[in-house]
Amino acid sequence: MNHPSPHFAADASHKQRLELAFQQLRELLGDRASAGESVRAIHGRDESWHPPQMPDIVVFPQNTAEVSSVARICHAHGIPMIPFGAGSSVEGALIPVHGGVVIDTCQMDQLLSVNPGNFDCVVQPGLLRRALNERIKDTGLFFSVDPGADASIGGMTATRASGTNTVRYGTMADVVRGLEVVLADGRIIRTGSRARKSSAGYDLTHLFVGAEGTLGIVTEITLRLYPRPEHVISATCQFPDVDAAVDTAVAIMQSGLGVARLEFLDEVMIDATNRYSKLDLPCTPHLFFEFHGSPAQTQEISQIVQELCEDNGGRAFASATQAEERDRLWRARHDCAYACMAYERPKRMMTTDVCVPLTELAQCIRAAREDARQAGITAPVLGHVGDGNFHMVLLIDPDDAEQVRRAEEVNRRLVERAIACGGTCTGEHGVGLGKREYLRIEHGEALEVMRSVKAALDPLGLMNPGKVLPD
Amino acid sequence: MNHPSPHFAADASHKQRLELAFQQLRELLGDRASAGESVRAIHGRDESWHPPQMPDIVVFPQNTAEVSSVARICHAHGIPMIPFGAGSSVEGALIPVHGGVVIDTCQMDQLLSVNPGNFDCVVQPGLLRRALNERIKDTGLFFSVDPGADASIGGMTATRASGTNTVRYGTMADVVRGLEVVLADGRIIRTGSRARKSSAGYDLTHLFVGAEGTLGIVTEITLRLYPRPEHVISATCQFPDVDAAVDTAVAIMQSGLGVARLEFLDEVMIDATNRYSKLDLPCTPHLFFEFHGSPAQTQEISQIVQELCEDNGGRAFASATQAEERDRLWRARHDCAYACMAYERPKRMMTTDVCVPLTELAQCIRAAREDARQAGITAPVLGHVGDGNFHMVLLIDPDDAEQVRRAEEVNRRLVERAIACGGTCTGEHGVGLGKREYLRIEHGEALEVMRSVKAALDPLGLMNPGKVLPD
Repeated sequence: MNHPSPHFAADASHKQRLELAFQQLRELLGDRASAGESVRAIHGRDESWHPPQMPDIVVFPQNTAEVSSVARICHAHGIPMIPFGAGSSVEGALIPVHGGVVIDTCQMDQLLSVNPGNFDCVVQPGLLRRALNERIKDTGLFFSVDPGADASIGGMTATRASGTNTVRYGTMADVVRGLEVVLADGRIIRTGSRARKSSAGYDLTHLFVGAEGTLGIVTEITLRLYPRPEHVISATCQFPDVDAAVDTAVAIMQSGLGVARLEFLDEVMIDATNRYSKLDLPCTPHLFFEFHGSPAQTQEISQIVQELCEDNGGRAFASATQAEERDRLWRARHDCAYACMAYERPKRMMTTDVCVPLTELAQCIRAAREDARQAGITAPVLGHVGDGNFHMVLLIDPDDAEQVRRAEEVNRRLVERAIACGGTCTGEHGVGLGKREYLRIEHGEALEVMRSVKAALDPLGLMNPGKVLPD
Repeated sequence: MNHPSPHFAADASHKQRLELAFQQLRELLGDRASAGESVRAIHGRDESWHPPQMPDIVVFPQNTAEVSSVARICHAHGIPMIPFGAGSSVEGALIPVHGGVVIDTCQMDQLLSVNPGNFDCVVQPGLLRRALNERIKDTGLFFSVDPGADASIGGMTATRASGTNTVRYGTMADVVRGLEVVLADGRIIRTGSRARKSSAGYDLTHLFVGAEGTLGIVTEITLRLYPRPEHVISATCQFPDVDAAVDTAVAIMQSGLGVARLEFLDEVMIDATNRYSKLDLPCTPHLFFEFHGSPAQTQEISQIVQELCEDNGGRAFASATQAEERDRLWRARHDCAYACMAYERPKRMMTTDVCVPLTELAQCIRAAREDARQAGITAPVLGHVGDGNFHMVLLIDPDDAEQVRRAEEVNRRLVERAIACGGTCTGEHGVGLGKREYLRIEHGEALEVMRSVKAALDPLGLMNPGKVLPD
């Protein structure tokens, strides 16, 4: 066969197994199995600061049967498998730290069915979230989970993603009703159903959602959809300082008003966003809002929120009902990660992602900002504050070991504070490589149960090895 | 020691192990470990039609450390453990089919903390749902999950329970944020956190929720609470036939109005409810509603719902805003199971519990009623139709083998239709003994994954054996 050989591994037997697997993958997939340098390089990195590392082989299956065959081949030869969607992980979840076969799902991007009467649809994992919404727009329904990136539904399932709509519509854990999964040995299973609820046995759906491809490869996803809101009002409000903005957000949540979006951006983030997205907001902390409902409902909520803002020192509450104006605002919010990357280019992002009880949010943000200031690191802060989830984005030069060390220290202190007050080290980005060590302090003995589950489902340890569970 | 001996088991070694375990349990718990006939009899049955079977020993631990010690003793001697709450299972989940030690949590009924600012509380498993709501009523918050019975929070966690509020506020899977669990070998773990969301590793919380005590004993539960609605309107509407009522319910759901309760009762259920709860509703199919929000919002929703009802042939739409009137209505709804039991006493209930896509609901209810009619079995139908979940209650004489057989056949056909159209054999009651065989057709190969998980967490098979997974 005329194709580049898989790259050399440490021992001869490993190399031999790889070559044999590659041969079988070529027989199965033809050109859709590749060991070419450039395709491997593209699949060896994500959007995190973690150093890239190349896989040995990349495959592009087109259906579940092919994924199952790929898994059987890898399983037979003891070769790692790393599922890959849009490549937008910010925690190193996609980096093939032990080499192996990257299973790129970009050719499995079909919307398999939409069922407006039952508010659901079935998709393949490679479908991107914006494309899904585009394709269902005539149904009157929408897919609610909206991380910043135009991520794949498979990747969002793997990281238990959320976004700006989560405060009202939930995370991927709330909207995934069922899955088709290929296990490490190639067996194909289905979990969940199209019913809104079930008590029929162990909840395998939630076990695979958030497992970051370490328990199996998701090949089909049944998603809950929501009716497009009748009326939408977006709004922004400026605050004199971070505490005033965060305290307002918490007060709004505690009022039980049911806002659809409630986002915080500190003054550094506003500056970065102004530059990247060509806005001209004053460089002071902001809250961004959205209200969904009937015209009367949204007007009522907007009015009360405005009063709560003004009670806490908020100024210039500005609302927008025109779709164009709203879209511009939320596009800017979704592009925050890219705005951060551009802010001190060529620095990379070390993203933090704690989620804490609402009552602890203000002091967690305050302490984190102070730590970053003392470490001398530029660190825009933005957050889904309605969920108690925020990101301080540490802008670092990955080649500056001392700066990386200081940034990691800031992150460590932030995570430890979050866990100490009942929160979690990651609200939505997942564990990947970056948060593995924190699972020890967050989960204690429960980590051993996670290991038992991993060993039961993937006894050879072939599924995305080196991720999620610490060594 | 002067106490009754555990009842005789099949082989001498088993008897010896039981006696040794009992001795150790007495040392640990004193009188709170019992092998008395009457206490064993009480713990050998639930509210289902399944034949009672006595445990060997009943213990009443008061804290997690005691539960852990009980588990260590049982584990050392290879004795089954069956967690027990309020005893209100309708699927035989509590019946000790292999004998062993029932762990009654009634003395672990504390509300450990309430945190209104973060909308959560921490409870012990033996706390009953009504007592919890009573104890938090001054906080402005409420616990939303409301099965008919005044079940224990531990039992509701175990069965992944839901209720009339689920259409708006979710099931136990949605409101349990974290757990403390004692594993089969006595280890104590904590899952989840007090944050609203997390992507930190495998979702063990959802794995234990709904596991019916077969993976561990839940000893502490962190629950999400909701703000008590500002304004509440309840309503009832009569329909000429079942199809008109169910079609209306589906249309209301598809309108995306966000009703808080949406319940269906057929004419037989209305008759039983009239008799048991002293109501005087006309014996025709009904929908019961509740709307939560601001006065303006609830009025707006009520108006639209009334129009939808009338468009579908609904008559006499009657709304109630007074708490007393509303409470009477919903108390009657919650007492439906007791109304069924009283309807043809001393018959027992064989409860069905399918949950299907909304689009399949009307034809599933129609077919089930026709099957019951043909089998000559009185079978009131009621349902959380907003969720696609309904119960046809087959009233049977458990000693009439032919009638039991016919009822099982009606249930089997109902379940098979539900699964065939994308639904589930149980929406909220759990698997227990009654639905085990149906897991094969519902889950297929995924059942093997459930077995792997069970084997990983409870390798000796001591946790509530004979439940959930079919042999």
